Amino acid sequence: MAPAATNEGEGKPIRCKAAVARRPGEPLVIEEIIVAPPMPREVRIRVICSSLCHVDLAFSNMQDPPGFYPRILGHEAIGFVESVGKDVTEVTKGDTVIPIFLPDCGECRDCKSTKSNLCTNFPFKVSPWMLRNEKTRFTDLNGEFIYHFMSVSSFSEYTVVDVANVTKIDSDIPPDRACLLTCGVGAAWKTAGVEPGSTVAIFGLGSIGLAVAEGARLCGATKIIGVDVNPEKFVVGKKFGVTDFVHAGESENKPVSQVIIEMTDGGADYCFECVGMASLMHEAYASCRKGWGKIIVLGLDKPEARLSLSCSKVLHDGKTLQGNLFGGLKPKSHVSVLLKRYMDKELQLDQFITHEVEFKDINKAFDLLKNGQCIRCVIWMNK
Amino acid sequence: MAPAATNEGEGKPIRCKAAVARRPGEPLVIEEIIVAPPMPREVRIRVICSSLCHVDLAFSNMQDPPGFYPRILGHEAIGFVESVGKDVTEVTKGDTVIPIFLPDCGECRDCKSTKSNLCTNFPFKVSPWMLRNEKTRFTDLNGEFIYHFMSVSSFSEYTVVDVANVTKIDSDIPPDRACLLTCGVGAAWKTAGVEPGSTVAIFGLGSIGLAVAEGARLCGATKIIGVDVNPEKFVVGKKFGVTDFVHAGESENKPVSQVIIEMTDGGADYCFECVGMASLMHEAYASCRKGWGKIIVLGLDKPEARLSLSCSKVLHDGKTLQGNLFGGLKPKSHVSVLLKRYMDKELQLDQFITHEVEFKDINKAFDLLKNGQCIRCVIWMNK
Repeated sequence: MAPAATNEGEGKPIRCKAAVARRPGEPLVIEEIIVAPPMPREVRIRVICSSLCHVDLAFSNMQDPPGFYPRILGHEAIGFVESVGKDVTEVTKGDTVIPIFLPDCGECRDCKSTKSNLCTNFPFKVSPWMLRNEKTRFTDLNGEFIYHFMSVSSFSEYTVVDVANVTKIDSDIPPDRACLLTCGVGAAWKTAGVEPGSTVAIFGLGSIGLAVAEGARLCGATKIIGVDVNPEKFVVGKKFGVTDFVHAGESENKPVSQVIIEMTDGGADYCFECVGMASLMHEAYASCRKGWGKIIVLGLDKPEARLSLSCSKVLHDGKTLQGNLFGGLKPKSHVSVLLKRYMDKELQLDQFITHEVEFKDINKAFDLLKNGQCIRCVIWMNK
Repeated sequence: MAPAATNEGEGKPIRCKAAVARRPGEPLVIEEIIVAPPMPREVRIRVICSSLCHVDLAFSNMQDPPGFYPRILGHEAIGFVESVGKDVTEVTKGDTVIPIFLPDCGECRDCKSTKSNLCTNFPFKVSPWMLRNEKTRFTDLNGEFIYHFMSVSSFSEYTVVDVANVTKIDSDIPPDRACLLTCGVGAAWKTAGVEPGSTVAIFGLGSIGLAVAEGARLCGATKIIGVDVNPEKFVVGKKFGVTDFVHAGESENKPVSQVIIEMTDGGADYCFECVGMASLMHEAYASCRKGWGKIIVLGLDKPEARLSLSCSKVLHDGKTLQGNLFGGLKPKSHVSVLLKRYMDKELQLDQFITHEVEFKDINKAFDLLKNGQCIRCVIWMNK
């Protein structure tokens, strides 16, 4: 039996629509669900819009854990606080917030440090539960529970998120822009620290790669080389600052790294791997300048994939390898800095949005992404 | 037939004593050799003293290239300029100089940059030749040539070195101290940028590891953990700032990384691999703090050795992996800074010298190093 449900009302369950991933590889099912009230240190959010990311797509197809079913996907979103649980002082009803998958408790050594964005109290994992306990706040109309996704689960009219995953933002910012801050901009800005006049190579011109290009452009890089198997990506890339292109697999029988070394007189200052393929990570490592080159890994390969480097080359080449989540951005401090730069017309987010759909058409967004037809598709809950 | 030889005399060959590695694994042979005058951009140096390093020992045993025979080893030394070749303006006869294996041409993008110590004009390699051409300046009394080593070959009363490998220093500095600047101090100071109050783990407390400890102490690290299979190394390590010790292989059935993570509440801020074993590089990677930990590789494993990292962990753990030669120090600018810190009694070098031998007893120095009885043994040409 389904629990009784009302519309908004502090401390009460809400009955609303959600797009539920019921089985791997199948379209999401839009159905009514029950969203429990927020527990202590939790926030219930009315979602305004989400943007669809490859990670959502990947998890919608995953047969085995960390794939879980039924589940509510979606992890790039914006919304209003509907109500807050006990002991929440950071936000209040009506605030505009971004739920962010990476926790930022604000209290541990990492969250207090300027050097790390990996919370010690709540280490990031792709869990199917709420952050502080192995529970869900979603049930279907049969009373069966529905799993969460990356602490966000924004493909629902309402969601419950831990306060460590909530960043309050200025309500003036257009929601469809605010929802799509990807890790790429942060990776160029915070992790790599791209310097004015430097050269950058980006492996994979999907939305992360394009965001890296935009971040590198903002930081003053003068040569931004895109590498992709699809040469049409250069046309798109130019809008985000990509100045040169290497057609992977079509480079006159030379490895891509050799082409980049020649284009940059010795190797790119910064190389970003944005696809999630160990082979490309190797190519990025080889493309980087000896002496000071930095390789930043942003793409997620299969769990068993390994990066194998020659110990001798690690020692002799003086290169730096680094990975990070969310581009090294600290959710509660850096996100508003980036959004301010958008409002100041320095950072461009507009061109990332190539498509918009209504919530009822969410499966169209998945098809667009699958077919490589969009950079970012925004899914509106009510428009 | 041996060419005619004189003693010092600009433009003329010099006949002098050298310790020649004639065959792999055999003691060096002290014999008379002929040292040709310096060619353009070269400097002939009268060696004052050398210190013996594990790299010399390793190459004295190497059966195949980059092992070459006959060869004059030795690459940590100090001497006086005896004469200079054409177009040398940087140093002049009588100057006190350190010949350094890493070239610093002063003109290429790397040498002009503050970010790199890897010269583009003369990339470092363990070549058996002079820097600018495949020639040697050494011949034996039968007129057969003798190979060079790491552009230094200081186990000879006289040697010829490219001006790119020569750093002029203040003649007030005691030569036995000046000859033994190892890469460890630089690795803590320049490459890692160890911060005050930080935690450091050092894998291998040989001379490089101890120099890292000294560098970390200078930088203000408060916990400096030494890891070694030999617990006696802790006694020595304490003199260089090592505060804690992990006995590798004896850690209550836990991996060393687990012990270090527990000792540092999450992992060391900086981990240095100073042995040259891929397995220790993995352990160092695992011992480092997520979020901001840095792993610095200083040890050289076999050419075929590989470091294999989980792509997923690289992405999720936000750690930084870096290798470097000579601790990231730029030979012509940083060496004198470090020597000044020694003269100012900030940097301690004295305790590195546990043994001193006369040149005729050079094979004793090799035995001491082989048997793990010394940190650094100084070999004096004339004392």
